[in-house]
Amino acid sequence: MKGMFITVEGPDGSGKTTQLQLLVRSLTEKGYEVVVTREPGGTKVGNSIREVLLSPEHDEMTPRVEMMLYAASRAQNIDQVIRPALKRGAIVVCDRFVDASIAYQGYGLQYDLNQILSLNEWATAGIKPDLTFLFDLTPDQASRRMKDRGQLDRIESRDESFHQRVYDGFKKLLEQHPDRMVRIDANATIEMIQDEVLDITLERLHERGVTQ
Amino acid sequence: MKGMFITVEGPDGSGKTTQLQLLVRSLTEKGYEVVVTREPGGTKVGNSIREVLLSPEHDEMTPRVEMMLYAASRAQNIDQVIRPALKRGAIVVCDRFVDASIAYQGYGLQYDLNQILSLNEWATAGIKPDLTFLFDLTPDQASRRMKDRGQLDRIESRDESFHQRVYDGFKKLLEQHPDRMVRIDANATIEMIQDEVLDITLERLHERGVTQ
Repeated sequence: MKGMFITVEGPDGSGKTTQLQLLVRSLTEKGYEVVVTREPGGTKVGNSIREVLLSPEHDEMTPRVEMMLYAASRAQNIDQVIRPALKRGAIVVCDRFVDASIAYQGYGLQYDLNQILSLNEWATAGIKPDLTFLFDLTPDQASRRMKDRGQLDRIESRDESFHQRVYDGFKKLLEQHPDRMVRIDANATIEMIQDEVLDITLERLHERGVTQ
Repeated sequence: MKGMFITVEGPDGSGKTTQLQLLVRSLTEKGYEVVVTREPGGTKVGNSIREVLLSPEHDEMTPRVEMMLYAASRAQNIDQVIRPALKRGAIVVCDRFVDASIAYQGYGLQYDLNQILSLNEWATAGIKPDLTFLFDLTPDQASRRMKDRGQLDRIESRDESFHQRVYDGFKKLLEQHPDRMVRIDANATIEMIQDEVLDITLERLHERGVTQ
């Protein structure tokens, strides 16, 4: 793969999506081809799967089904968007990826980690992010920010211990992947984070030899 | 498992769903507890997944995504409906099951059979039908019957060679599972098929010692 695959991870309310948009704008202004996508979703099929996943009506969904739906959305995104873009040398920026499945389904729902990894190995066809920004915000802070935004969806309205396990899961991933994952302090100002994210991205693009 | 798990398979237009309903009515009248379900669907979550699968808008869906969505719907059906019903000794009658995935995704879309089998082994948690009625109708006949019914969905509107491969796939399954699978001539009258299906079912219930 000639391009670069960047993911952003962290809880809702952490500012990751805003920062993703700012990064995409900066890179585009510098002349890079940037493809933006998100999970679950990112494609028409994926967006329909996303609606199934997030509907508050689906409270009977079992963990293994949730896991498969995330993986199905991801497989569609890989086949239709991510792999073709990387092949032609573009930068792909994805809002959540496999780390989110490990943190939410693995640590949060305590579903078998090996099962998640093998399902995702298949869903991603072996494509891995080159750089991941992890937006660090404690469950308390995230919950306060989300309440200000209005109604919570099915995932967000899970209990506190769930969100604490997810948080700890992300921290473990950070320890396991010190080269790929970069911790971002979500309590810094938007401008500070924006500069940090852009600087690190440009440095990595340079290292990989990805050009406009 | 104390109950009995019955599936009906075959193309749309073969009369399998009508016969399933007639069988359920007869068994219920005889005092059996019967749980009816279908695939994809059978649960609220499964019905939402079914809508994603069958929407004509989703023509970009890749075969592996289609396969995963069928498996996800099936896992929900197993967890929420089928396993609990069989455990309490009920008869479960399901409109399509793993054989349909093998025939449609495996033979029809020519997706890797081993992958389908391993995904379904996981989705079903090892639960297999005790008895399967395969409604035998050639692709030509099925297509004619479906045209009389009106608009075709995304699966049904695939080309002729697809439907021929599916048909051949079902025939191979019949050869591989002579004890479990029973061929039903879909060109017989409704009444003849109804009697045949009920007689075979009652015989198998008796053999298994399933009582009202």
